[in-house]
Amino acid sequence: MSKIPHRLYLTEEQIPRQWYNIRADMKEQPDPLINPATMKPAAEEDLYPVFCEKLAHQEMDAATRYVDIPEEILDIYKVYRPSPLIRAYNLERELGTPAKIYYKFEGNNTSGSHKLNSAVAQAYYAKEQGLKGLTTETGAGQWGTALAEACSYFGLPLTVFMVKVSYQQKPFRKAVMETFGANVIASPSDTTAVGRKILSENPNTGGSLGCAISEAVERAVTTEGYRYVLGSVLNQVLLHQSIIGLETKAAMDQLGEYPDVVIGCAGGGSNLGGLMAPYIQDKLTGKGNPRIVAVEPASCPSLTRGKYAYDFCDTGKITPMAKMYTLGSGFIPSPNHAGGLRYHGMSPILSKLYHDGYMEAVSAEQTRVFEQAVRFARVETILPAPESAHAIYTAIQEALKCKESGEAKTILFGLTGTGYFDMMAYSSYLEKTMSDHIPSDAELQIGFDSLPKIPGIQE
Amino acid sequence: MSKIPHRLYLTEEQIPRQWYNIRADMKEQPDPLINPATMKPAAEEDLYPVFCEKLAHQEMDAATRYVDIPEEILDIYKVYRPSPLIRAYNLERELGTPAKIYYKFEGNNTSGSHKLNSAVAQAYYAKEQGLKGLTTETGAGQWGTALAEACSYFGLPLTVFMVKVSYQQKPFRKAVMETFGANVIASPSDTTAVGRKILSENPNTGGSLGCAISEAVERAVTTEGYRYVLGSVLNQVLLHQSIIGLETKAAMDQLGEYPDVVIGCAGGGSNLGGLMAPYIQDKLTGKGNPRIVAVEPASCPSLTRGKYAYDFCDTGKITPMAKMYTLGSGFIPSPNHAGGLRYHGMSPILSKLYHDGYMEAVSAEQTRVFEQAVRFARVETILPAPESAHAIYTAIQEALKCKESGEAKTILFGLTGTGYFDMMAYSSYLEKTMSDHIPSDAELQIGFDSLPKIPGIQE
Repeated sequence: MSKIPHRLYLTEEQIPRQWYNIRADMKEQPDPLINPATMKPAAEEDLYPVFCEKLAHQEMDAATRYVDIPEEILDIYKVYRPSPLIRAYNLERELGTPAKIYYKFEGNNTSGSHKLNSAVAQAYYAKEQGLKGLTTETGAGQWGTALAEACSYFGLPLTVFMVKVSYQQKPFRKAVMETFGANVIASPSDTTAVGRKILSENPNTGGSLGCAISEAVERAVTTEGYRYVLGSVLNQVLLHQSIIGLETKAAMDQLGEYPDVVIGCAGGGSNLGGLMAPYIQDKLTGKGNPRIVAVEPASCPSLTRGKYAYDFCDTGKITPMAKMYTLGSGFIPSPNHAGGLRYHGMSPILSKLYHDGYMEAVSAEQTRVFEQAVRFARVETILPAPESAHAIYTAIQEALKCKESGEAKTILFGLTGTGYFDMMAYSSYLEKTMSDHIPSDAELQIGFDSLPKIPGIQE
Repeated sequence: MSKIPHRLYLTEEQIPRQWYNIRADMKEQPDPLINPATMKPAAEEDLYPVFCEKLAHQEMDAATRYVDIPEEILDIYKVYRPSPLIRAYNLERELGTPAKIYYKFEGNNTSGSHKLNSAVAQAYYAKEQGLKGLTTETGAGQWGTALAEACSYFGLPLTVFMVKVSYQQKPFRKAVMETFGANVIASPSDTTAVGRKILSENPNTGGSLGCAISEAVERAVTTEGYRYVLGSVLNQVLLHQSIIGLETKAAMDQLGEYPDVVIGCAGGGSNLGGLMAPYIQDKLTGKGNPRIVAVEPASCPSLTRGKYAYDFCDTGKITPMAKMYTLGSGFIPSPNHAGGLRYHGMSPILSKLYHDGYMEAVSAEQTRVFEQAVRFARVETILPAPESAHAIYTAIQEALKCKESGEAKTILFGLTGTGYFDMMAYSSYLEKTMSDHIPSDAELQIGFDSLPKIPGIQE
């Protein structure tokens, strides 16, 4: 056991040269996107006004198993990757568990999270197509920060619509994005038609990711040479994030380890989708059968309490509709929910795999999550993002079950990022002013009532 | 050239097992500490009321060349070390320089800076002695954060006196320390005699490091079972920080590289003292002769405009007196100075080496420093702390000189940490409200007038 180091870094040569596309091994594909203009399945070309062409292709391409990572993207990956695989010796000792706990830490880059993996790819393809700029949305701010970094690297203008409640609570997140040259606008704003409409209906709204997406898409399609990019949910994002899992598996293989359980927080699904990629491949191809567990906040429980249905990806209902676990685009999570993981839907790939029994899902209340986050920080000396702390919480539960049963299971979880910009949330936890909100069935029904009707498909 | 990776991580086995003590190779020693009670050189025992015994011994021990790092300290080093040595390919391309630029990045741990290297050591020795708690001061907050992490790991209570201007400007720094269980007090405070005295003389003061040191020392010596710890300046701190340089040299050796110039920011000297340690050894023992350059803020220019004189380490004049480059303990840097590097004095070891011609020193104005920090962040994707950016600024100057001369020099600098908690400073730079302050000779004279008189030694 002492042979296994605390941190294992692969070498630069061991950085994967290809992303892995889960869909190529899925026995059943996720249902197709529906174009709201035609109420028919969307074609790749239908996405060109919104996404740049290579990304639209990646979005629709279920057949290509491995996609070459362009050298220009690898050149940036090499600046901050491989990320470390950490053996949580200190946490194991703290818990007194016989379990072996590993985590893949994606917080060691300035953006502070795994989001940079896809931001770099999306900014690169946009630049390659000769676009003039990009738009996006950000909630907790990690995606916006990552994309601002990537765009500044490629010299590409960026406009970020930031969920208003985050914009107000996290002025320093905004400042980081501005340092990287981004234009940051609080959403809903009066700079778009959809923003003005939402403001007129609810002037005091703190905004939502779904609303910010609507504004970002509108701005992209109405600005010459601009396209929209999204940091989670999409198939293309899971493709890029597969680098997390591929590196993890290479490192675990090097150690002679294989996880009994793979745990990741799940908001839109980008981190878990990336971390689990090679392990889901094992399950789909019969080469291995680890448990895969998605952890979501009890206040925004799309997998555990949502419906598997077609829904819009945004509040303004201008994006294509996707079949996914969703709380309805009209669902707005409680404002006392800290951090990210507040999206109403879930990656269609994850949703399908969950629906087909390849994954489990659990939810956790935030005060319990922060309790374990502080415990983790004090022994592992990494202050986790609230999102990441959901995975920590569940990993600790699993490790404590091992303590009871005496089993020395191998637990792997994704530590997506650091909590430097979430100190208000930590303070409210420490001052005991943080509360939990579990939506009632009636509250959820409001969201479900917003689900679209699609003739012949979803009545 | 393409064989050299972007980031080189040594393996866990390559983490140095010993610290290096520069004094063992110095031809002339720094002048001894003077005990203000006796006006005579202080003995090791004189320090016991303030420092724990092992640290007092390290402070006074100039003879032992290599000091074994206890296993318990290595166990934490392994959680976040080795830190990467990064080849700044992107920055080289941005500058169009033939120079090879390397930096040792110490920001990849939650404390966000190199300060953790000494915090872990100091907390360990305090715990080993059976102490009940520690006190310290923090300015920009990096040291306080690092020590809070280390103390929470060892289960040791900690009280941090935080310079009031930072306390007010950086509420999230305070929250991080509190998350790690520290008690944080704005300094000057009414909780100490020296704090009350300073407040009565200047009720509106924003505080200073020297003042916070006085409060922390008073609290330590008046609280049963408590001792005081300091994050820079001291010989013991340079000893612990030598791990930075030892790792750097091991990595550079592995690459077959040797620096022509070694650059570090210098406030109290802990980072540069650590980074340069094995290279100064080469200079002292005739094995190599790289230039060593300290970079300090123009607003707090202890090396470039200070006096080499005995001075108190604190404003309240209760600490031993050290011979060092100093602006006088009465010097208070301009409140518009952002970040750390605002200490009136300088490590006695660095001061002596500078005095004896082994080091150079330059100063830089903060607007120019931030200009290069933003430039660096955009290509290297690391948002540097303002302190670290001083080294970036000078490294870029050196690289641009190489561009003019066509020389392919090897430039090494220390990137001490990340700027996540300095976004107010970045914002003020971006909004062009940041200004520079170069103290006038008359302003400096106020500080010099506070220098102590020591019969027979300094009249």
